[in-house]
Amino acid sequence: MTVSSFYPPQRTLMGPGPSDVNPRVLAAMARPTIGHLDPEFVRMMDEIKELLQYAFKTKNELTLPISAPGSAGMETCFANLVEPGDKVLVCINGVFGMRMVENVTRMGGEAITVNNDWGTPVDVSQVEEALIANPEVRVLAFVHAETSTGVRSDAQALCKLAQAHNCLSIVDTVTSLAGVELQVDEWGCDAVYSGTQKCLSCPPGISPITMSEKAVAAIQARNTPVQSWFQDLSLVMGYWGGGAKRAYHHTAPVNALYGLHESLVMLQEEGLENSWQRHADMHGMLRDGAEAMGLDFLVDESCRLPQLNSICIPDGVDEAAVRSQLLNDYDLEIGAGLGALAGKVWRVGLMGQAAKATNVRLFLDAMGTALGD
Amino acid sequence: MTVSSFYPPQRTLMGPGPSDVNPRVLAAMARPTIGHLDPEFVRMMDEIKELLQYAFKTKNELTLPISAPGSAGMETCFANLVEPGDKVLVCINGVFGMRMVENVTRMGGEAITVNNDWGTPVDVSQVEEALIANPEVRVLAFVHAETSTGVRSDAQALCKLAQAHNCLSIVDTVTSLAGVELQVDEWGCDAVYSGTQKCLSCPPGISPITMSEKAVAAIQARNTPVQSWFQDLSLVMGYWGGGAKRAYHHTAPVNALYGLHESLVMLQEEGLENSWQRHADMHGMLRDGAEAMGLDFLVDESCRLPQLNSICIPDGVDEAAVRSQLLNDYDLEIGAGLGALAGKVWRVGLMGQAAKATNVRLFLDAMGTALGD
Repeated sequence: MTVSSFYPPQRTLMGPGPSDVNPRVLAAMARPTIGHLDPEFVRMMDEIKELLQYAFKTKNELTLPISAPGSAGMETCFANLVEPGDKVLVCINGVFGMRMVENVTRMGGEAITVNNDWGTPVDVSQVEEALIANPEVRVLAFVHAETSTGVRSDAQALCKLAQAHNCLSIVDTVTSLAGVELQVDEWGCDAVYSGTQKCLSCPPGISPITMSEKAVAAIQARNTPVQSWFQDLSLVMGYWGGGAKRAYHHTAPVNALYGLHESLVMLQEEGLENSWQRHADMHGMLRDGAEAMGLDFLVDESCRLPQLNSICIPDGVDEAAVRSQLLNDYDLEIGAGLGALAGKVWRVGLMGQAAKATNVRLFLDAMGTALGD
Repeated sequence: MTVSSFYPPQRTLMGPGPSDVNPRVLAAMARPTIGHLDPEFVRMMDEIKELLQYAFKTKNELTLPISAPGSAGMETCFANLVEPGDKVLVCINGVFGMRMVENVTRMGGEAITVNNDWGTPVDVSQVEEALIANPEVRVLAFVHAETSTGVRSDAQALCKLAQAHNCLSIVDTVTSLAGVELQVDEWGCDAVYSGTQKCLSCPPGISPITMSEKAVAAIQARNTPVQSWFQDLSLVMGYWGGGAKRAYHHTAPVNALYGLHESLVMLQEEGLENSWQRHADMHGMLRDGAEAMGLDFLVDESCRLPQLNSICIPDGVDEAAVRSQLLNDYDLEIGAGLGALAGKVWRVGLMGQAAKATNVRLFLDAMGTALGD
């Protein structure tokens, strides 16, 4: 066997992530690797922290990128805030709520669930009832932007409820960060994780997180060690914490962090609020075009994520054949349905750099052709 | 605050890792991101598996890159092979053996340790005695190449002992892979993890692992779920396992894997055995030059790793000042001592692309100047 260098095709990425990556970010990843304790690298780490605080709208000191994908960011939040025997209220309205339950269970916690139909947001009043019925619950966990359905839940109301019931909130913002409004401090979110490959338009592999002072206090007050050495934030902070003296924990993914840094610089250049608005605008263009074609959206407009559109598959259409046609004829990737929505919807992403008019036009043109418009 | 793009300095990396990255690998990482389920990406994943089998000298079907740094690869091995209450014999002769103990403990296992002086290899006969004294031990864990000291232990003998005592072996090859002989199948290693940022000369962030059939059988026979959803290999294999139908587990770090692929293509071009020989040759050149300068090596030549040289700090020398001088005047990074060896040695890496004559000459020249030669 002799393997040659790999040259990927040039795709337009309009699935549920990864999203299109700007050449500036790709170029940043190709800069020379330096040591993870190099003074210049440490300076860049400080800048990443500041830029993430900007993106999350927080002053949280514990704000940093976990050296692994979003799923590991999720696990880091649960591993640090849940101890064996703890009761956690988990809201399920899609795949990622289910994954939260899996996390709680594997950590020896007990998950109590509030279930809502896929395609609808978390029902705040049901959550309130569940918190009243289960006063021993310590943590409320929910997904702000469900990537499996394209639904936005009311993170502000849910975090307020958590506070009112003396719970910490764990909030999945993998798909929401930089794509729709997210106000970590103002809304009082406690443990928040995200991913790089959605609206930050960075390659996948890193998970930004931020933790409130209350969350940090809870970590410090644990009775048992965090079950994962790699994810133990009290150790990770020894490396990412301020000051010139960094303690080695693990070797940071140097070049991936160059990419994240550049994508955050670009977000700052555009302005966070402008980024939110651009996603909304591009969704409007996509919606108008798709509806004119007779396509329906799964999610009601009141809670629809502009950056992740679940489009119902018309009767009699072979959804996989359409995706293959788009990929082969247009180098255009859109996503299949996931879990309960497999075979029922396509997921069309307008995330980060992918949220632009040329992409919307390409999608409408390609889909129109595929459906024999 | 306005943050600008980050342009790292061009360093020569001769520390304990990351090591110098070839421009071919950097260029690969900057290629366009495609989807983690794209047919072209899936084809590249299959090539990475084959190339890793080549590098590890194994036919193990479960051979893949974990989407996180070497520390997470370590944790993945322990999380999948250790269940609460299991007794694990851990050999400690440096920092990474200690980290193994931490892993066992956090997984609810019980670590029994064999301790050897830092700078010496694991004592095989002590391990045998400990296995005889503790017949209930299920797993023997050790570090093949201790990055904290520069010592090579006898992995072949230790894996043979494990087999004789009905144990699975967990072998840390973070620093050994591609730098010194490693024969996973011939030696009968069961669970082996490595890192990309040492002798593969790739940026940090990914951890190649390989598991024998016996290890896979042990995972399948577990009584309890793996405590980490992210690290559960029975799930990870659903994505990395053969066949066209890949189940989504987490979003793979697409561009980091481009880099790993290219570094493995380069290893195949050179030939694995040639890579081992090059590391040995370059160590010889470094040793001759350093000894001529009056410098001593911590580790006896019989068990010294060519790619990681612990050089004793001469009396009266400010070791940190020397490292700063090398970094500032020569853009040359070497490593400090770690743990018990902090302040006692420098760690000079000759790993992967860094193992070349120009680097050795640069180091000798720079160190000679710094020491007032």
